[in-house]
Amino acid sequence: MSGSPLPDALPATSPDDPLVAGADSPTGGPPAGLLDELRAALGENAVLTDPDLLRTYQRDQADLCDAGLPAVVTRPRDTAGVAAVVRAAARYGSPVVPQGARTGLAGGANAVDGAVVLSTTAMTEILEIDPVNRIAVVQPGVVNATLAAAVARHGLRYPPDPGSWESSTIGGNVATNAGGMCCVKYGVTTEYVLGLEVVLASGEVLRTGRRTAKGVAGYDLTRLFVGSEGTLGVITEVTVSLRPAAEESLTLVAVFDSTVAAGTAVAEISARGLTPSLLELLDQTHLRTIEAYRPMGLRTDAKALLLAAADTGPRAAADLRRLAEVCESAGAAEVFEATDATEAAALLQARRLALPAMERFAAERYPNGSPGIIIDDVAVPRAALAALLDGVERIAAECEVPIGIVGHAGDGNMHPNIVVDRADPESVRRGQLAFDAIMQLGLDLGGTCTGEHGVGLLKRDWLAREIGPVGVRVHQAIKAALDPAGLLNPGKVI
Amino acid sequence: MSGSPLPDALPATSPDDPLVAGADSPTGGPPAGLLDELRAALGENAVLTDPDLLRTYQRDQADLCDAGLPAVVTRPRDTAGVAAVVRAAARYGSPVVPQGARTGLAGGANAVDGAVVLSTTAMTEILEIDPVNRIAVVQPGVVNATLAAAVARHGLRYPPDPGSWESSTIGGNVATNAGGMCCVKYGVTTEYVLGLEVVLASGEVLRTGRRTAKGVAGYDLTRLFVGSEGTLGVITEVTVSLRPAAEESLTLVAVFDSTVAAGTAVAEISARGLTPSLLELLDQTHLRTIEAYRPMGLRTDAKALLLAAADTGPRAAADLRRLAEVCESAGAAEVFEATDATEAAALLQARRLALPAMERFAAERYPNGSPGIIIDDVAVPRAALAALLDGVERIAAECEVPIGIVGHAGDGNMHPNIVVDRADPESVRRGQLAFDAIMQLGLDLGGTCTGEHGVGLLKRDWLAREIGPVGVRVHQAIKAALDPAGLLNPGKVI
Repeated sequence: MSGSPLPDALPATSPDDPLVAGADSPTGGPPAGLLDELRAALGENAVLTDPDLLRTYQRDQADLCDAGLPAVVTRPRDTAGVAAVVRAAARYGSPVVPQGARTGLAGGANAVDGAVVLSTTAMTEILEIDPVNRIAVVQPGVVNATLAAAVARHGLRYPPDPGSWESSTIGGNVATNAGGMCCVKYGVTTEYVLGLEVVLASGEVLRTGRRTAKGVAGYDLTRLFVGSEGTLGVITEVTVSLRPAAEESLTLVAVFDSTVAAGTAVAEISARGLTPSLLELLDQTHLRTIEAYRPMGLRTDAKALLLAAADTGPRAAADLRRLAEVCESAGAAEVFEATDATEAAALLQARRLALPAMERFAAERYPNGSPGIIIDDVAVPRAALAALLDGVERIAAECEVPIGIVGHAGDGNMHPNIVVDRADPESVRRGQLAFDAIMQLGLDLGGTCTGEHGVGLLKRDWLAREIGPVGVRVHQAIKAALDPAGLLNPGKVI
Repeated sequence: MSGSPLPDALPATSPDDPLVAGADSPTGGPPAGLLDELRAALGENAVLTDPDLLRTYQRDQADLCDAGLPAVVTRPRDTAGVAAVVRAAARYGSPVVPQGARTGLAGGANAVDGAVVLSTTAMTEILEIDPVNRIAVVQPGVVNATLAAAVARHGLRYPPDPGSWESSTIGGNVATNAGGMCCVKYGVTTEYVLGLEVVLASGEVLRTGRRTAKGVAGYDLTRLFVGSEGTLGVITEVTVSLRPAAEESLTLVAVFDSTVAAGTAVAEISARGLTPSLLELLDQTHLRTIEAYRPMGLRTDAKALLLAAADTGPRAAADLRRLAEVCESAGAAEVFEATDATEAAALLQARRLALPAMERFAAERYPNGSPGIIIDDVAVPRAALAALLDGVERIAAECEVPIGIVGHAGDGNMHPNIVVDRADPESVRRGQLAFDAIMQLGLDLGGTCTGEHGVGLLKRDWLAREIGPVGVRVHQAIKAALDPAGLLNPGKVI
C-alpha cells in the first residue's frame, strides 16, 4: 500500500498465513513457552487465546486499516504484569501491541499477526486525587469519563474530552495525545500530563516528569511518550494536572449560507482575541444527516452551522454577544442564543450525533453493500479554515463521493467524513482519492495531516511527507534508541 | 566533583592546558583549517578569535560552575550559517557550545576548552507576526522583551517572562524552557512553542511541529528540543503561539509572621481553585535586603510577604478579595490591596529587586572577600511549600550561611539564594552543604531539582539522583541517537 494510506485489501486474515490458519486450533498459535511464562506471570484469566476472543482484539475503530490476528491477548493488572509481558515477548521475539479501549481512529492499536496484545483495560484504578496540588494519578485503563466524574466530586476538572470520552481510556488518550471540543480554550491531553510511568522495550520501568507545577529536570521524556502511540513504551501510570471545575457556559448557534463565511467568522473570532470555550462547525451534509437521524429542527438549508460557547462566569453573556456580533458581521444568516442549559445541551448533543448520523446515512445509501466511513482528521491554521472547507467541497464533487465535514473549527481542526461502500472497489478508490486530496490540501494550506487522531497505520505515508526525510530519520533514530528490536507496536507511526 | 554539584576549583583556566596557554597568542588556538572554513562560511566579522573577546564568551551567570576557554566564537546570521559552523566543527572534532544572551543560571551555556562557541545573538529577526493565527516566528537571538513589545503592538501577548526577560533571548528561553512570574496562570515556555527549526549534530536542518493550534503528527520532537539545553541540536527558528493581550491586573500584598503560614495560604489558594495571575513570595532576608537596597516601607519585621494579582477583568476585584480572605484566614498579619497601577508596579519592582539587593548584601557582608550568590532553584508540590520554607530556614541555621528565599510560590517553585565568600573555602564549603541539603529536601518533599533554571553543569548529579539509572540511560540513548559524536554542548545535562 505504498503511496496510499488505505489498504489495497481488507485485513490480512488470509488462510495462507500460518498464524491465522492455526488460529482456530491452538496448535498454530504462539510459542508454548511464551504462553506458559505469561500465565505464570499474570494468572490464567489474564491470558486469552480463544480464537473468537483474539478476533475481537484485532483492531480499533479505523476499520479500513490492516489488522493482523494476535497470538495472545494479555490483560495485566499492574506495572509488574506489564513488564513481565514485555520481557517475555522480547525473549521470544514477539511483537507487543498495546491497546486501550480500541476507540482509536487511525489503526494505531491494530494487531499484527502473531502479536502479544497488551490490553490495559484491567488497569482501572484511580490511585490518587490530590485537590491541593490539583493532580490525579491513574492507571492507564481508567476511562476518561470515570476520571472526569471522580475529580468533579472534588470540585475539579480533567478537561480533555475526545469524542470517545465515555469509553476511551486515559492511557489511550495519552498514547494518542487526544483532543476534543474543549481544546480550543483548554488545550489537548499533553497539556495535562505531568508525569508517566512507562515500561520500556527492555522491560525496565521508567518514571518521567514530576508532581510539581513546574519542572525542567532533563529532557521532556513525558511529552516524548505522549502521542507516541505505543511505539516507544507501554504507559502504566499517568499523573495528570487538573483545573478548577468549569463554570456554566452560555451557548449560541450561528447559521451560514456559505461555508466560507463560517470559516471567515472563525478567523475573525481568533483575530479579535476572543476565547470561546467551544467553537464547532457542522456542514450541510452533517446538518441534514443529523436532522434525518434525530429531527430537532436544524436548518437543513444552511451551508454551515457554528456552535460557540463562553464559560467566563459573570462576563459570559457579554462574551457571547461579541461572538454573535462577529458571526453576524461575517454574514451569518441567523444567530440565536440558547435560552437555557437544556437547549444548550441539545445543541451539543446534535454535534455529538454527527458520526452516528453519518453512519446511518451510509447504511441507507449502500443498503446492499458494505457501508463505511473514512473518518479523516486535518488541521490548518485558523486563517485557512475557509479555504479548507471550500476545498473539501470541491474534492467531494470531483471525486463524486459524499463528504461531510465537522469538527473543531476554533482550532482549525476538521474531520472530513468520507462515505464509501467497502464492497465496491470503485467507491473505495474514489474515497481514497478524496482522502489523499484532502491530506494534500491540508499540507498545502500550511496544516498537518492529523490534528488529533494520530498517525497509526492510516497516515504513515502522510506523516513522512509532512516531516520530510530529516524528520523521518530523527523519528527512526529515537525509535531505535528506545526499542532497538522494533517489537513495540511495529509498523505504526513510522 | 563527583557527588557535588559545585566545582572543587574555579574554571579550568590552568596555564598547563595547551589551548588556554596558547590563548593569548593565536598559535595555540583552533585548527587553522577550521578557522578558514568558518571565515569562508560566515565572513571575517562573524568569527572572533581575539583572546579578550573569547574570555567574555566563557560563561553564563552561574558563576560557580566550571567554564573552559573557547577556541573561537562564531556569530552566524542565519540557519545556513549555523549549519556551516556545526558541519565544520564536526569535521575537526571540535565541540560546539550554543549560547544566547548567557543569562542562564546553571552553567548550561558555559564553554569547554577548545570549543566553537555558537552565539545566536546575531540572529535577531522577527520573521512574522500573524494576529489571526496568533503566532509569531522568530530567529533565536530575538530578545524576549523585544518580542513581547512587537506582539503587543498587535494586541497580543507572549506570556513567558523569566527574570532575565529584558536581555535573554527566545532561543535561550526555549533551550532552557524558561519560566517566570506569569507561569502560575499562563504556563512556561514549552506551552508556547508550536514548532522549531533545529540544526542537528549532522548539520542537517530539522523542522519540527506546526503552525496550527493542534497537531499530533509523529513524536513531539518540538518539546524534546525545548529544555534540552543545546545538547541535541541548535535552535535556529522558533514558532510561538500568542495570547490576547492581558487585562489590567489588581495586586495585593499579604504579610505573615511565619513562613509556614505563608506556605499554608498558598496551598489553600490552590485548594480553593483560585487562579491568581501572579503569586510570589519573599522571605524576611529578602525583605530586609530589598528595604536596605531601596527603602520603600516594606515590613522588615515580617517573616514572609506574598504578592498576588488577579487579571480577570470585571471580576478581578472579587477574585482579589477572595485571595485576601484566604491569606487572612491562613494567619496573615496584614493584607493590603494596591490602590492603583503605580502602587502595584512598585510592589512588583520590589520583587524584581530581590537579586540585586541580595548581591549588595553579599558585597557588604564580605567587603574584603569575593562575595557570591549560589542561586538555587527547586520546585515542590504546592502542598509542600510550607515544609520547604521551614526546611530551608533550618538548613541556613545548621550550615551557618545566609539564605534568602524568594520565588514563584504559586508553582511551588522557589529560589533559595545562598550567600558565600568565594575567596573563603570554608564559606564555599558551607554554601555547598546548604545547596546539597536543599536539593535533597526538595526531592524528599516529592519535588524536582530544578523548576525553571535547568540542569546545565550545576545539577547534573542531582538530575541523575532524581531520574534514577533508567532515566539516565534513556537520556543517554536519546543523546547518542541525535549526537553520536557527543559534540553538542558536551558535559551538560547528562
